[in-house]
Amino acid sequence: MIDRAALAAFSAVIRAGSFDGAAALLGVTQSAVSQRIRGLEENLGTALILRTRPAAPTDAGRRLMVHAEALGLLERDLLRDLGLPAPDAPLRIAVTADCLATWVIPALAAVEGVLFDLVVDDQDHSADLLRAGEVAGAITASDRPVPGCDALPLGHLRYIAFAAPDFVARHFPDGVTLEALAHAPALTFNRKDRLQKAWAEMATGARVILPTHYIGSTHAITEAGLAGMGWGVNPETLVAPLIASGRLVDLNPHVRVETPLSWQVARRVAPALAAVTRVLQRAAPRTR
Amino acid sequence: MIDRAALAAFSAVIRAGSFDGAAALLGVTQSAVSQRIRGLEENLGTALILRTRPAAPTDAGRRLMVHAEALGLLERDLLRDLGLPAPDAPLRIAVTADCLATWVIPALAAVEGVLFDLVVDDQDHSADLLRAGEVAGAITASDRPVPGCDALPLGHLRYIAFAAPDFVARHFPDGVTLEALAHAPALTFNRKDRLQKAWAEMATGARVILPTHYIGSTHAITEAGLAGMGWGVNPETLVAPLIASGRLVDLNPHVRVETPLSWQVARRVAPALAAVTRVLQRAAPRTR
Repeated sequence: MIDRAALAAFSAVIRAGSFDGAAALLGVTQSAVSQRIRGLEENLGTALILRTRPAAPTDAGRRLMVHAEALGLLERDLLRDLGLPAPDAPLRIAVTADCLATWVIPALAAVEGVLFDLVVDDQDHSADLLRAGEVAGAITASDRPVPGCDALPLGHLRYIAFAAPDFVARHFPDGVTLEALAHAPALTFNRKDRLQKAWAEMATGARVILPTHYIGSTHAITEAGLAGMGWGVNPETLVAPLIASGRLVDLNPHVRVETPLSWQVARRVAPALAAVTRVLQRAAPRTR
Repeated sequence: MIDRAALAAFSAVIRAGSFDGAAALLGVTQSAVSQRIRGLEENLGTALILRTRPAAPTDAGRRLMVHAEALGLLERDLLRDLGLPAPDAPLRIAVTADCLATWVIPALAAVEGVLFDLVVDDQDHSADLLRAGEVAGAITASDRPVPGCDALPLGHLRYIAFAAPDFVARHFPDGVTLEALAHAPALTFNRKDRLQKAWAEMATGARVILPTHYIGSTHAITEAGLAGMGWGVNPETLVAPLIASGRLVDLNPHVRVETPLSWQVARRVAPALAAVTRVLQRAAPRTR
C-alpha cells in the first residue's frame, strides 16, 4: 500500500520542481515533504526524485507519476460524483506532432477539470512510453496495438504535398518528375519521417532519394514552404486554406498520403480515461 | 587524414538511411559503400553507423557528421568561387521552439544552396549539443557563451501573457490576482519552461505555484489559449494579431517578459557559417 499523503507530496515536488515549492503547494513544512518522500522511497526500495533544480523524477519516479495520475483521475470522478471539489494532477499523454498541430487541442479543450501533460512524440516512441508506463495513453500514427493497451481507431490523417508558386516555377517547370525531385530540396520533419518519400514514390512510381531540409516542426514546415525553402507534405487541414488562397500550390491533387491514427490507452487506466476517450473519438478526423 | 570518398559514403548512408540507398545516391555498388564505411571505422577505431532501419549514426558518427558538414560548407564555398555545382549535405543547427515558431524560417530561407537540419531545442540542451559537436551552431535563449563557441547577440524575444475573452471572464473577473492564478490553469511548454512563472511573479510581485497543462508546442499553446484551456505566455509576434482582432486578451499590457537570444557557433566552423550568421543577425528580433 502506498501512503496517499506521501504520494501527494511526491506529485507536488514534481509539479512545483522543488521541495520548498511542494511544501507551499500543500501548506505543510518542507521537512514534512522531505520525510514523506523519504518514507515513500524506503517503502518502494528505490529513489524517486533527483534532487536537481528543478527536481526531476527518476525512471521509477516517472512510473509512479502515471500511477498517481490514474489514481487522481479515479478520485476526481469519485469526488465529482460526491459533489466535492477536484484536485489538480496532470494527465500524461503522448501525441504525434501532426495531430497536435491539427485536431487534438480543440478536442481536449472540451474536457473539464483535467490538466494535460502532452508529450510530443516526434520519434515514434509512443509504444515504448506506454510499455514503460510513462504515459497513460497515446495518439499514434499507427494502428498496431501496443501490448497491454486498448487501441481504438481514430480514422486517418490525410496529407497534401505542397510548395510555393515560385518554387514550383523554378524546380518543377515540367511537373514533379523523378529528375526534378532529385534536385528540389524537400522539407522533412526528422530522420524518421518517411511521408515525403512515400508521397514521391506514389507520385512517380519509382524509388527516390530526396535532398532535404530537416525542420523539426509541423508549422515550421508550412512556413518553410511559404518562404520557398522547399516542397513538403503536411496535413490537409493546415495547407488546404493556403492552397485555396494561392499562397501554396497542391503538387498533385490526385496523390494523397493517409496515415491511420489510433488512441492507445493502458488497459489498467482505461476506465479512468473514459471522458478523454470520448472527446478524442468525437473529434478525430474520419477521412474514410 | 580522413578519406574524402569514405566520408561521402558515410554522409550518404546517414542521408539515405540505408547502405543500398547510399549506393544509389552515389552511383556506386553497395559493396563499395560498405567497404568505404568499414575502412573509415577501422581508421577511426570506432563504430560510426548503427545497422538499423533507417541506419543511424553512433555518438562518434554524430560527431563525424558535424565534421562532414563543416567540410561540406568549405568545399561548397570553394566550388561556388570556382563556378562549379555544389553538393548536398545538411547543416545541423539547434533552435529554440519559440524562435523556430517566429523569425528563424524566413531568415534561413534567404540562404541559397544550403540544406538545414534543424534540431528543436526544447530541453535547454544546446550547450551540450555544441560541446559534443552534434550541432555546428545554436540559436539559444541565453547570452551565456558556450566554451569553444563565438556568441553573437540577436536581441531579445518579447513575450505577452494572453487568454481567451471567455477564460478571462471566468477565471480573472477581478484581474490577474494571486488567488485567481492559484486556480486558473496555465499553459506551459514543458517542465523546463519558467516563462509563465516569471510573468506571474512580475505581475503579482509574489512567488506563485501555478496549476498547469504541459503542451509541448509553441503553436499548440496559442491554439489552447484560443480554445479556452488556459492562459499562456507566447512570443509577441504570434499573439499580437490575435489580441488586435479580439480573439485573445492581453492579460496585462504593462508586463512583458523578454529573453535574450544569441547565435552560438563553434569557433572551428565559424568561417564556413558566415553566410548563415549574416542572415540571422539581419533577421533577429531587436526589441531594445
